[in-house]
Amino acid sequence: MIADRGADALYVGDLVNVRYLTGFTGSNGAVLVFADGSAVFFTDGRYREQAAQELPDLEHVITRRLLDEARKRGRGSLLAETHVLSVDAWRRLGEPESSGRLVEELRETKDEAEISLLRRACAISSLALEQLLAGPLTGRTERELALDLETRMVELGAQDKAFDTILAAGENSAIPHHRPTDRVVKHGDLLKIDFGALVEGYHADCTRTVVLGRAADWQREIYTAVRDAQAAGLERLRAGVPVADSYRAATESLDAAGWLSAFTTGLGHGVGLQIHEDPFLGAAHPGRLTRRTVLTMEPGIYLPGRGGVRIEDTVVVTDAAPEVLTTTPKDLMEIA
Amino acid sequence: MIADRGADALYVGDLVNVRYLTGFTGSNGAVLVFADGSAVFFTDGRYREQAAQELPDLEHVITRRLLDEARKRGRGSLLAETHVLSVDAWRRLGEPESSGRLVEELRETKDEAEISLLRRACAISSLALEQLLAGPLTGRTERELALDLETRMVELGAQDKAFDTILAAGENSAIPHHRPTDRVVKHGDLLKIDFGALVEGYHADCTRTVVLGRAADWQREIYTAVRDAQAAGLERLRAGVPVADSYRAATESLDAAGWLSAFTTGLGHGVGLQIHEDPFLGAAHPGRLTRRTVLTMEPGIYLPGRGGVRIEDTVVVTDAAPEVLTTTPKDLMEIA
Repeated sequence: MIADRGADALYVGDLVNVRYLTGFTGSNGAVLVFADGSAVFFTDGRYREQAAQELPDLEHVITRRLLDEARKRGRGSLLAETHVLSVDAWRRLGEPESSGRLVEELRETKDEAEISLLRRACAISSLALEQLLAGPLTGRTERELALDLETRMVELGAQDKAFDTILAAGENSAIPHHRPTDRVVKHGDLLKIDFGALVEGYHADCTRTVVLGRAADWQREIYTAVRDAQAAGLERLRAGVPVADSYRAATESLDAAGWLSAFTTGLGHGVGLQIHEDPFLGAAHPGRLTRRTVLTMEPGIYLPGRGGVRIEDTVVVTDAAPEVLTTTPKDLMEIA
Repeated sequence: MIADRGADALYVGDLVNVRYLTGFTGSNGAVLVFADGSAVFFTDGRYREQAAQELPDLEHVITRRLLDEARKRGRGSLLAETHVLSVDAWRRLGEPESSGRLVEELRETKDEAEISLLRRACAISSLALEQLLAGPLTGRTERELALDLETRMVELGAQDKAFDTILAAGENSAIPHHRPTDRVVKHGDLLKIDFGALVEGYHADCTRTVVLGRAADWQREIYTAVRDAQAAGLERLRAGVPVADSYRAATESLDAAGWLSAFTTGLGHGVGLQIHEDPFLGAAHPGRLTRRTVLTMEPGIYLPGRGGVRIEDTVVVTDAAPEVLTTTPKDLMEIA
């Protein structure tokens, strides 16, 4: 890819992309990848030992002048990630040509080791949620429940939460990205929980919505509509199928049920070393799905002032039905 | 400052700087500040309501083409933060001149509302640590203790931890930025805990090192050396004093005790909306301290394979002795 562009080397300074290419997890590092496939890694003295452990097979340059050193080592013409590189850093590198999103494109398809970490992150998430849903739930605040869930994930082996938990009760469940408050969870509430575990840098992403007590008719209706839309979307997540198809299938399902206008968020996104990464599911996406892409599928219905439902899984694209990593059941749970 | 540079407006797209200037806490937003002091805020449709709540007094532009819209509204000549702005975004804005670190410089001096949030974050941190140190400590793993401390902070009202807790026992305490492991804490260990609470975006940063059981002579010796160095550094943190003075005082103290070569990290940094922000304490800093700058002071001694000690406070610079916000005692604690 580098030689195709008539360049000698690609400078990668985005830390997520550096981690993907090298395994380095520190807070300052960059890698030069040469057209012949060789590479040199740059970091500062704080990370000398960590780099030796994490990247035993790569040549290291320990320097406080990372950009100057990379420019010097870059031999001839460089490419760089101008969508993330700062202007000042780019100038310091000698104003290289843009590489585009080369590394992000590689990251879309996961290898077995990555899928195994995502599987573990999702298994921990599912188990922690099932423990939380065993109760008690009513009488506790959104904040208390969110903290309980996050603590359980770490106790079960997560490195951390993958992102700040969205835990929203009653009317708050209508807010797509609600932050937990001191509102007390009570009988009759919809309870929407969007959360996930982080395992060795890989993110799980799962949402379940339950009802406390018997579901009212309107709650059951929107739950069923979201459930059906998610199933329709998942049905079109398959290797070789256009990315846009799943978006069309899920939104047509919501439209047929009369709820499309209440679906106000994105439908799904890639997930891996970042919680949101390429590809993003949308009607305009020009590509096709490939095996081992890991995606979320998360339709929802949000009724301001009343409540909302979202159902989300993290799944792996295969040649057949996707492998669902977030295994908590999706039948409507009515929790006494 | 904008007019001084012959420009009409400053484009601020860095989210921390946007939050500082406007109060906006979402994940996509930018602000144009005009030379006459007026401003326009840009975000996308997801944040329409949040922006209305958080920025009631600012004109909002809701758009998916934030950069194009900002360029259009920028009237004449723009400045932009080329140290953080990506090359692609900068081109989209029409390649504006660099503003330098204008907003970061403003952020160095805190107002009373900011100091009050930092005071709260530090009070929560200190209380949580004192609860943790009440024990039991021995027989539990580093990971368990770190999670316990983080959970207590949220229970006491923190929005989150300010950063991943460094909790290191025995020989691990010699690693400046150790990540908690399954090592069990035992009698005779040094236990180093570097942690803090996050409150409304403001970060606390505190380190204490304790001994489990009676301190060995070498543990007491390095503790005393670090304690004295911290006191010497704090003594020179005062409005009007050169920033470099505190660095000189702390390192001279370590040198006099014969331990300077075992001090291998930075001495301190500004803290506020970011855990590490300007100014950074160092021998080469050309400036002087100003009132209401909030800083850490964190000398340490690290003896590979044996153990280490760090003592760190978050303090506010005043005309007299700094106000120490992290109030947990600093006498050597020997915990049975």
